[in-house]
Amino acid sequence: MKHKFAKESYTEMNELVLPNDTNTFGNLMGGRLLYWMDICSAMAAQKHCNNQVVTVSVDNVSFKRSIKLGEVVTIQAQVTRAFNTSVEVRMEIFAQNLPEGTKVKSNEAYYTFVSIDEEGRPKAIPTLSPETEVETKLFEEALQRRELRLLLAGKLKPENAKGIKELIKTFNRSH
Amino acid sequence: MKHKFAKESYTEMNELVLPNDTNTFGNLMGGRLLYWMDICSAMAAQKHCNNQVVTVSVDNVSFKRSIKLGEVVTIQAQVTRAFNTSVEVRMEIFAQNLPEGTKVKSNEAYYTFVSIDEEGRPKAIPTLSPETEVETKLFEEALQRRELRLLLAGKLKPENAKGIKELIKTFNRSH
Amino acid sequence: MKHKFAKESYTEMNELVLPNDTNTFGNLMGGRLLYWMDICSAMAAQKHCNNQVVTVSVDNVSFKRSIKLGEVVTIQAQVTRAFNTSVEVRMEIFAQNLPEGTKVKSNEAYYTFVSIDEEGRPKAIPTLSPETEVETKLFEEALQRRELRLLLAGKLKPENAKGIKELIKTFNRSH
Amino acid sequence: MKHKFAKESYTEMNELVLPNDTNTFGNLMGGRLLYWMDICSAMAAQKHCNNQVVTVSVDNVSFKRSIKLGEVVTIQAQVTRAFNTSVEVRMEIFAQNLPEGTKVKSNEAYYTFVSIDEEGRPKAIPTLSPETEVETKLFEEALQRRELRLLLAGKLKPENAKGIKELIKTFNRSH
Amino acid sequence: MKHKFAKESYTEMNELVLPNDTNTFGNLMGGRLLYWMDICSAMAAQKHCNNQVVTVSVDNVSFKRSIKLGEVVTIQAQVTRAFNTSVEVRMEIFAQNLPEGTKVKSNEAYYTFVSIDEEGRPKAIPTLSPETEVETKLFEEALQRRELRLLLAGKLKPENAKGIKELIKTFNRSH
Amino acid sequence: MKHKFAKESYTEMNELVLPNDTNTFGNLMGGRLLYWMDICSAMAAQKHCNNQVVTVSVDNVSFKRSIKLGEVVTIQAQVTRAFNTSVEVRMEIFAQNLPEGTKVKSNEAYYTFVSIDEEGRPKAIPTLSPETEVETKLFEEALQRRELRLLLAGKLKPENAKGIKELIKTFNRSH
Repeated sequence: MKHKFAKESYTEMNELVLPNDTNTFGNLMGGRLLYWMDICSAMAAQKHCNNQVVTVSVDNVSFKRSIKLGEVVTIQAQVTRAFNTSVEVRMEIFAQNLPEGTKVKSNEAYYTFVSIDEEGRPKAIPTLSPETEVETKLFEEALQRRELRLLLAGKLKPENAKGIKELIKTFNRSH
Repeated sequence: MKHKFAKESYTEMNELVLPNDTNTFGNLMGGRLLYWMDICSAMAAQKHCNNQVVTVSVDNVSFKRSIKLGEVVTIQAQVTRAFNTSVEVRMEIFAQNLPEGTKVKSNEAYYTFVSIDEEGRPKAIPTLSPETEVETKLFEEALQRRELRLLLAGKLKPENAKGIKELIKTFNRSH
Repeated sequence: MKHKFAKESYTEMNELVLPNDTNTFGNLMGGRLLYWMDICSAMAAQKHCNNQVVTVSVDNVSFKRSIKLGEVVTIQAQVTRAFNTSVEVRMEIFAQNLPEGTKVKSNEAYYTFVSIDEEGRPKAIPTLSPETEVETKLFEEALQRRELRLLLAGKLKPENAKGIKELIKTFNRSH
Repeated sequence: MKHKFAKESYTEMNELVLPNDTNTFGNLMGGRLLYWMDICSAMAAQKHCNNQVVTVSVDNVSFKRSIKLGEVVTIQAQVTRAFNTSVEVRMEIFAQNLPEGTKVKSNEAYYTFVSIDEEGRPKAIPTLSPETEVETKLFEEALQRRELRLLLAGKLKPENAKGIKELIKTFNRSH
Repeated sequence: MKHKFAKESYTEMNELVLPNDTNTFGNLMGGRLLYWMDICSAMAAQKHCNNQVVTVSVDNVSFKRSIKLGEVVTIQAQVTRAFNTSVEVRMEIFAQNLPEGTKVKSNEAYYTFVSIDEEGRPKAIPTLSPETEVETKLFEEALQRRELRLLLAGKLKPENAKGIKELIKTFNRSH
Repeated sequence: MKHKFAKESYTEMNELVLPNDTNTFGNLMGGRLLYWMDICSAMAAQKHCNNQVVTVSVDNVSFKRSIKLGEVVTIQAQVTRAFNTSVEVRMEIFAQNLPEGTKVKSNEAYYTFVSIDEEGRPKAIPTLSPETEVETKLFEEALQRRELRLLLAGKLKPENAKGIKELIKTFNRSH
């Protein structure tokens, strides 16, 4: 089972906001963006895993800026860390008004996917080696996000959540 | 500004899983479910607010069970708590195989919406009065989930996160 | 072959009217409503039959009120009567303007489905036992509607249309 | 207000049955066909009225033959009769398997449309002059179908339903 | 292998321009028209070939007139010539404003399809016999268009492009 | 009116092939690809023009390789040359099988767009300065492709087609 680099999974999606993607204010509906983000991050996950993947979780996503009819949604996805059979994918979302030449960051999000074989069973995947400083930071934080997800899903006992414990110690110390 | 009850916002959506909603395994894609959940919870939010709403955040969502082509996705949404201009909506998602008469819970999720006026500015909404024991529990926990969202979005200073602090005390005591 | 109650088949569908569902007046197109009604009533039919079903007929449907972009279409479907291998489903359709808190009845309709097995042959289904007064009235009238459908489809000889004959006698007497 | 001929409104629509139009048997869903029929008959109605139209009713439609994925649905629509502000459109629906060169009649249906002005009020339209024998027969029967629709919609008192009365006399005489 | 006539493949498609088909000016997007043209010409090709077909090329298409939301796009397709395993289909596209009773030619285009068997291999098809003067002209010019396509695709050596050579001679003589 | 570089317009689109995009062989339909290509190249054109654009023509497109359900279509678009009010965009299309890690070039194509103002009139745009050797070659050939388009559209007299004349001289000399 080989190692792969984060950038090997980089995937960019550009989607034009059409009338049916908008609410009565002419702004992109949150649900449509969540749909595109799922497809874009699944592509990044498939690139890393060289395998079929299914979405297992979506982290907290916040929508900070409305995106308008006729604008272009740019989604940039890259795997942050691989676990035994699953990967976390980070996305940055931008809204582009091409006639005006503007590109504004809209939000960030993390989706997690599990790699599965033909019978739908989890399947081992390559590990990820971060290269840049940013990639290394995201790689390390990915463990804490994973523990938080597993805690919230009731799949991890609090006493085994080492990353979170570390976080709480820091949190307690400073408050 | 009047009070409203949680059940007044109850909304149920039933969607048939069609071919274009599925991945190559014939299972519902996560993104399509996130899209339907956004529309269903927006309806519940509009009922409570009696106003247009836009999605501001999606909490951790985990997908526990694959839903198949031809099955029916049932989404049940209800507002848990109203803040000044925003509401939290809780959803329970079920997969129904109608010919076999089965109905299995797939997952739960929380979406948050802000009520906005014609110019897109936040607009005050009715408060929510929980009635049942379950509604009261969800109402109280909603504060902690909100603090967690605001913390994660960098909109709340840790020293003001009273609900979370309480949670951490309990957490520390028991571990 | 067991009995089932009408309420066991009850199905509610809520759909948001999006731009592509509307005509140039910004009103829901009749054809889109007929499509949603087909899916909703098929769900109700499947619940009663515990089997795959296919649409065999649509009764007279009249559209009495325009439904607008951004409103919610609520379809409530319930089986009225089961015949050997087919069921009649009655629907009530409402238009909801959620921000204004209004809910107006738009129209009613009857769709009929046949239960089919894997090879596409009609398959016997449970009988339906009406419980309430309204259910009993709809159950009894279902026979007349069925005869009318079969007459119009050329599948029933007029001399065998007992329910219709009864109706005509009443009609003649009063005019 | 001029006269127009039936054939001036003739409209043909050909649609390829794609995966998302089908049920789990790979057959065209009834609701999708009802949707296409609405658009095709609305085109025929617009041609006669030279005006915007909205669907007011759908007569009994029965589905006699399943149409398969990859087949072509051919809908042929023509106005049968114009009333003051509304028209009845008759459709014949065919299923074509182009590789096999087959074309089988699937069903017939009648949709009714009202012509409306910019403010949504009914607007007078040209009368229709039938030319052929078939057109004349459909023109005459259209009155009976209209009375039946109005009776069923509760918009016509039975004593004023002259066409239906005539029908019942014939019906009584022969049974 | 029998002969077939051009008119046997004639196919007409009528599509209503809906909101999601339009750009921010409310005009039909070129890409949506290219999509409909592909389906309509594939139907014409299937009629001639009595076989499954796949698109192999699209000739120069120019868009001369914008088509508006609510207008009807009429596509008329007919095979011009059959080669061993492929056919060229010519289309004329019209924009109809039905309420105003106008029908304006928008553009013309040529799509080419190859007939394939179950394993995806090219399969021989009937020859086409042009009947009218127009059909004969289109039949003869089809050879030049085919050579141009093959040249541009790098599948034909210039010295074998007899039809084009003839064209150049004429071109040189007159300039 | 400033100069812009070719790379400033670079746009990449990645689309997952879903069931409704495929024919009965499970391969991407040509028309769907033409639709995506139109949107992707329009984005590149908008980036160069900093203005709304509409499609004016599509050059010869040939489809060399079938793309399968579940594969990813990658479209890379870049403006090759700007004329007074129009731009030519070149695209390279690839089919990626992400689980297998393959990426195969499918085809190339040229779409042309005109820049328009609020009233729909052509509007002057920046010129394009090619930088690399490849960009310079595409820039020069763009003139010949444009003359060919204008000739085919009947908008250019043969005696003014200088680029084509040059091409024919070369062609005659070598054959």
